[in-house]
Amino acid sequence: MARRLQLVQEELAAFFFEYDTPRMVLVRNKKVGVIFRLIQLLVLAYVVGWVFVYEKGYQTSSSGLISSVSVKLKGLAVTPFLDSSAQVWDVADYVFPAQGDSSFVVMTNFIVTLRQTQRHCAEHPEGGTCKDDSGCTPGKAERNAQGIRSGRCVAFNDSVRTCEIFGWCPVEVDDHIPRPALLQEAENFTLFIKNSISFPRFKVNRRNLVEEVNKSYIKTCLYHKTAHPLCPVFNLGYVVRESGLNFSSLAEEGGVVGITIDWDCDLDWHVRHCKPVYEFHGLYEEKSLSSGFNFRFARHFMENGTNHRHLFKVFGIRFDILVNGKAGKFDIIPTMTTIGSGIGIFGVATVLCDLLLLHILPKRHYYKQKKFKYAEDMGPEAGAGDPAATGSTLVLQENMKTS
Amino acid sequence: MARRLQLVQEELAAFFFEYDTPRMVLVRNKKVGVIFRLIQLLVLAYVVGWVFVYEKGYQTSSSGLISSVSVKLKGLAVTPFLDSSAQVWDVADYVFPAQGDSSFVVMTNFIVTLRQTQRHCAEHPEGGTCKDDSGCTPGKAERNAQGIRSGRCVAFNDSVRTCEIFGWCPVEVDDHIPRPALLQEAENFTLFIKNSISFPRFKVNRRNLVEEVNKSYIKTCLYHKTAHPLCPVFNLGYVVRESGLNFSSLAEEGGVVGITIDWDCDLDWHVRHCKPVYEFHGLYEEKSLSSGFNFRFARHFMENGTNHRHLFKVFGIRFDILVNGKAGKFDIIPTMTTIGSGIGIFGVATVLCDLLLLHILPKRHYYKQKKFKYAEDMGPEAGAGDPAATGSTLVLQENMKTS
Amino acid sequence: MARRLQLVQEELAAFFFEYDTPRMVLVRNKKVGVIFRLIQLLVLAYVVGWVFVYEKGYQTSSSGLISSVSVKLKGLAVTPFLDSSAQVWDVADYVFPAQGDSSFVVMTNFIVTLRQTQRHCAEHPEGGTCKDDSGCTPGKAERNAQGIRSGRCVAFNDSVRTCEIFGWCPVEVDDHIPRPALLQEAENFTLFIKNSISFPRFKVNRRNLVEEVNKSYIKTCLYHKTAHPLCPVFNLGYVVRESGLNFSSLAEEGGVVGITIDWDCDLDWHVRHCKPVYEFHGLYEEKSLSSGFNFRFARHFMENGTNHRHLFKVFGIRFDILVNGKAGKFDIIPTMTTIGSGIGIFGVATVLCDLLLLHILPKRHYYKQKKFKYAEDMGPEAGAGDPAATGSTLVLQENMKTS
Repeated sequence: MARRLQLVQEELAAFFFEYDTPRMVLVRNKKVGVIFRLIQLLVLAYVVGWVFVYEKGYQTSSSGLISSVSVKLKGLAVTPFLDSSAQVWDVADYVFPAQGDSSFVVMTNFIVTLRQTQRHCAEHPEGGTCKDDSGCTPGKAERNAQGIRSGRCVAFNDSVRTCEIFGWCPVEVDDHIPRPALLQEAENFTLFIKNSISFPRFKVNRRNLVEEVNKSYIKTCLYHKTAHPLCPVFNLGYVVRESGLNFSSLAEEGGVVGITIDWDCDLDWHVRHCKPVYEFHGLYEEKSLSSGFNFRFARHFMENGTNHRHLFKVFGIRFDILVNGKAGKFDIIPTMTTIGSGIGIFGVATVLCDLLLLHILPKRHYYKQKKFKYAEDMGPEAGAGDPAATGSTLVLQENMKTS
Repeated sequence: MARRLQLVQEELAAFFFEYDTPRMVLVRNKKVGVIFRLIQLLVLAYVVGWVFVYEKGYQTSSSGLISSVSVKLKGLAVTPFLDSSAQVWDVADYVFPAQGDSSFVVMTNFIVTLRQTQRHCAEHPEGGTCKDDSGCTPGKAERNAQGIRSGRCVAFNDSVRTCEIFGWCPVEVDDHIPRPALLQEAENFTLFIKNSISFPRFKVNRRNLVEEVNKSYIKTCLYHKTAHPLCPVFNLGYVVRESGLNFSSLAEEGGVVGITIDWDCDLDWHVRHCKPVYEFHGLYEEKSLSSGFNFRFARHFMENGTNHRHLFKVFGIRFDILVNGKAGKFDIIPTMTTIGSGIGIFGVATVLCDLLLLHILPKRHYYKQKKFKYAEDMGPEAGAGDPAATGSTLVLQENMKTS
Repeated sequence: MARRLQLVQEELAAFFFEYDTPRMVLVRNKKVGVIFRLIQLLVLAYVVGWVFVYEKGYQTSSSGLISSVSVKLKGLAVTPFLDSSAQVWDVADYVFPAQGDSSFVVMTNFIVTLRQTQRHCAEHPEGGTCKDDSGCTPGKAERNAQGIRSGRCVAFNDSVRTCEIFGWCPVEVDDHIPRPALLQEAENFTLFIKNSISFPRFKVNRRNLVEEVNKSYIKTCLYHKTAHPLCPVFNLGYVVRESGLNFSSLAEEGGVVGITIDWDCDLDWHVRHCKPVYEFHGLYEEKSLSSGFNFRFARHFMENGTNHRHLFKVFGIRFDILVNGKAGKFDIIPTMTTIGSGIGIFGVATVLCDLLLLHILPKRHYYKQKKFKYAEDMGPEAGAGDPAATGSTLVLQENMKTS
């Protein structure tokens, strides 16, 4: 019993006070040595230059950000309209939705159908013409139907007869898109973007109204990518041009423009160095399949107790504001991990040089002999059955003697 | 001085022209050898098969994408309505918001309260009935109040008396949801989704109108998960069924359906192989707690100088379109990193086989003796105080002699 | 030929039945041993404690989630308004957009300009006053213009003359924001959030109406961060206060509040342990530059055949609901990878102790001699030209003899 306890104690002591390190062959070969050091240098350059400095491997980083965007447009446009000679359009008329979301539409062109009511009228000739009632099957037509067919064939205008429908009448005639766009003046509208972000992990809040932007600057500035990169007021024409599109043709049939706000914050520096970068992307190529952007909305009203509506087919530019962000800050844990894995990658140098040393060099057999020691299965029985304690002292002595 | 310089030179030369590689024991043991190679094979299969081929470890990848979704609905529904015998509903009437965002609602059912004005009337019996004025405390009621109580008890209808309120009158009575849904025909509406994405890191733009989709195809096709997986026109009924829900019951009380568009782009191939995959998810289980989807909106109008409104309680299906994407492209940096860490994982084979060799096999003591050399702290003083230069030559000769 | 085949066979057999493991020096030095074990312990604690337990390195995780948020507000506010003595505002009047998106605005204050029509009138004095027509250049004014100048100077009121414009008249006068806010009662409104998420990778669906929330609880509960952390009904005043803002001042000029819903799901447990965590963030600091939130919208109506509108400048609190989520589940692949790289990091202990052993300790030369064996380029020709087969047996015998 006492002996076993002593053995355990000895083993434990051996475990705690021993250190094992690999035995190495130090090869004095200029070729291999230089290659080895070169590979190590490359690995070091990669680890330090790329992983540490470029990828900031010493930082804990987070791209989880809370972002809120609100926009405000300014500008007026004049169009001929309705019964009156002219119509002034202000922000309450041309922005959808009114509350200025991160994705909003600025109306640039429209086709209006005034005073629609629910009654019977001739449908649009696009759905087909007819000669008499036999050409009109009562009921609903397919995808593009404007109403429920009554089965009668009536005059659409002086020259064309079409099937009669029940629905919102008169029907919309959207054959001719006004050119140039009616609200072409939208090119001079200004867009004010307010963006506030928060990195919850680092408890950092930022707004796009950074320190450089003060009350007087904001009133007069206009964003320009080099001259005024921090001004949060944008000229719509400038945004569209920077996105690679042509404003005039975009205004006619509508389109989509993406505005990205990038926040790349290195919090090892003062937070005021963390500034937004704006970029503009044209998301629809022009002249491609189904390239415009339009939608319909109605203004309902009652007149003489009947429900009426003005129907607008609106062509507009949709702006999608997307916020991306990344913040990093020094942290001991990722630093340790990066150093650890960097050391691991150093092993690659040894693997490659061993390949060279043991398989390619003319003296490969000499090096093999130096590197390897052979232990045969049918070797001497020494140590096989010995008790551990005495065995290891024996081995120790033997080792002392020979190597 | 000169001697010291020479020493430094020698050390530098030694550093640059030397290469150290571990000395190995080559064990000729069939059992251990086979196990060793098997583990290596497993690791190799894992690194090559999983990390390299499946996870595409040779690519730099990015899931940062800019996406823009716009939708367009088509279809008509007829309901009995208002004073007139029938009412036709078109897209300007049943889609919220009108501009077709990535999250939109299609009205499928509604309860309308016509011609509300601000005046006094009896509240809904849900808030409690009364017998005389003593049962009605003037002031605001709790959460579900429809107006400000005046303190009087008045007749709600022939049989019930409730407290009088000031507010929008007459009050909404939403006890009975129309069954079947009034706009049940929404099942046949079609939804056209336009999605354009951009991976800014790779400067790649794609639209869901891919090369296979041309002008004539788009006019007639209808999405089907196997027959027409790329057609961007969807039948609402199909979408709801694929999401695992029942259209009829969903239409009655409303609900939420998610449509995901997945872009998984391997940019080592031509960009035209990068195609969207559509999936449909029912986000609310039916018959669970608070499972419907409804909201209220009003159409305001003036009549005889007074502000009126039609109040609609709208039951509808909300569609949330979510775009995910990932793009990868060959890059030397991640390839090197993957290879490097793959070599690192090979070490696992050695660790496991050492365990077997040194602790489990019967001849473990023999192998231990081969693998380990012992250096005692109380060993010979050789080398302790020697100057580095002569010390190392001495060591060299000794080594030459013995091993 | 037969001999070559035999050689290949022998080489193959050698490859498959051999196992090579590094030869080690076992240093019996208490100092180094203890340091070695301590470093190993640290690495082990890091790998097990941080990577495995804290970062859940044994799980495959996904933050790709499909989320759908819908909201519903309840509450009434009374304001003096228009011609009538009082006006009751209900949910159809004060929420934008009506359908209750994940980002919505609750109106808390407003400035209304009634019965605007398109005609000529005097502009707001903010744009500058005039003495006679010479002070008014016809045409459009800059950013803040309210209409197109006709070139005439007319009376704005009894004391001030301004340029005449054509546009929506009378012009909006928004000099005085009502204090306190007209819909101050919004503090008592309740917000019901329905959120359903789905982790497509794990085929897991969850709603924020978790098992603990039943029909009766939902009707009476109000969220409180400690007492009722799972109740999905929120008091607006509470939300604003928790976000660190002051409701009264926020209500006057508007602002933005972020509500985050965090889902952190460990799917190795039952899915019912996966619950939402709500947090509130004030995204705009008060009293800073451009801190409020407001927008304009119009209610259009026809009167006597002319298009009229009521213009509202709405001040409100915008709530942005953001859903984050992460789910993890045990998987053999990441477990293996974590173990593998963990073993790799153990190498750091050897590197550090070698530094100590070979460069710092006084007996460093003795240890160097034990660890390294030197192979000179100009060494003995042994093995250089020998055929592989006989060479290796020779080496074997030599090894047998000496070590």
